[in-house]
Amino acid sequence: MIEKERISDRDKAVFEAGIKLGALYHQFTGTPVSTETVEELERVIERSVSLQPWVNSVEVKIDREKVRKRENENQFKYCELSGEMLDVKVVVLYEKVEVHARVKYEEKMDYPLMHVEKVSV
Amino acid sequence: MIEKERISDRDKAVFEAGIKLGALYHQFTGTPVSTETVEELERVIERSVSLQPWVNSVEVKIDREKVRKRENENQFKYCELSGEMLDVKVVVLYEKVEVHARVKYEEKMDYPLMHVEKVSV
Amino acid sequence: MIEKERISDRDKAVFEAGIKLGALYHQFTGTPVSTETVEELERVIERSVSLQPWVNSVEVKIDREKVRKRENENQFKYCELSGEMLDVKVVVLYEKVEVHARVKYEEKMDYPLMHVEKVSV
Amino acid sequence: MIEKERISDRDKAVFEAGIKLGALYHQFTGTPVSTETVEELERVIERSVSLQPWVNSVEVKIDREKVRKRENENQFKYCELSGEMLDVKVVVLYEKVEVHARVKYEEKMDYPLMHVEKVSV
Repeated sequence: MIEKERISDRDKAVFEAGIKLGALYHQFTGTPVSTETVEELERVIERSVSLQPWVNSVEVKIDREKVRKRENENQFKYCELSGEMLDVKVVVLYEKVEVHARVKYEEKMDYPLMHVEKVSV
Repeated sequence: MIEKERISDRDKAVFEAGIKLGALYHQFTGTPVSTETVEELERVIERSVSLQPWVNSVEVKIDREKVRKRENENQFKYCELSGEMLDVKVVVLYEKVEVHARVKYEEKMDYPLMHVEKVSV
Repeated sequence: MIEKERISDRDKAVFEAGIKLGALYHQFTGTPVSTETVEELERVIERSVSLQPWVNSVEVKIDREKVRKRENENQFKYCELSGEMLDVKVVVLYEKVEVHARVKYEEKMDYPLMHVEKVSV
Repeated sequence: MIEKERISDRDKAVFEAGIKLGALYHQFTGTPVSTETVEELERVIERSVSLQPWVNSVEVKIDREKVRKRENENQFKYCELSGEMLDVKVVVLYEKVEVHARVKYEEKMDYPLMHVEKVSV
């Protein structure tokens, strides 16, 4: 292995995007949610994540169909926010590097996949 | 010990109040917050907890002075929601028993004390 | 409603049991787990909850069949700890009141039901 | 801005390192801990994070002095795991890229700083 000591702005931007997705996922999953509260929960997640360093924008979509299905399955008419309901796009801007990253549930993989969608410099 | 098998409605109401406080504390502490977002975070916690069974009302107050102090201490101008910022009152109604419970940081104890304030039947 | 201001030791014991279940549920769900790590995770949850006030004993069982099933469903061979995998018994002792409480997933209700099993004085 | 559509292995490795740090921070802070349980908690965090994709190794150190100080400040002799106690090194290996990342509390900044320490290819 050849060591490349220098950490570039691109590295930092991509790293920060990863932090934000990992953090929000483990902070907010488990939150009680229903079709009544889903929209305000989306906004609060967006606003909370936006406070963190180098976040340019955040867009949170919670799958209303899954919330509805889950809330109808239990007698108390609510459910917990889970990875399979989430579609979140985060744009990080670090110096001149802009990174678009996303967590979105992949049905085929049964996994909330986090990935980098685009890097612009 | 004499066993008292029968679990009363009062027991159930008080138990449910405990669940709600323990749950919200560990769900929401750690959330990024600033003086800009504190109010909407209060509302979302109230609305989320209200979804849970037998919750009659919830009132969340986050200490703005502590948020301001903490956000000024770091360069990114935000902080994490922590137990010392919280004052939450939950009213549970189970059958005919109403329980008022609260979590509030006690400076002297350096502890976010949860307690039952009132039981009405 | 007739107000009963006096909060009894029984009230306090039952309330504390509720706190513990609500807290551990929202603290530990979401933790990465596999059949390889399930046992040590059980022990750490038990030990962590035991630190809290008035906890006499804790017994955590995570459903290995569900962990195995879930870890086989995704390519990375692990899953997240979720409510449907949990069976936790907590015994609280406050003054002379002993409360046995439990959270256990109820398949029929599709809900991780928390309940008081026994109160002894 | 010039778009660089191609996401490199280096990008992916660095991104994954960020995810792991963000995730573990928000999953495990808040956990009850004492000087008695700190070591096993370190091991469980290491083992849990190691389950996640492309993690090569994890080393978790929780500051025992801070735990001791905090547990002595409250009457129940335990505290919550918080960012200021954490020093975690994660090594991610994605294809041929190895990334060393770390979260460590920076006293001067009063912030649990996450950063990339080294990238080798």
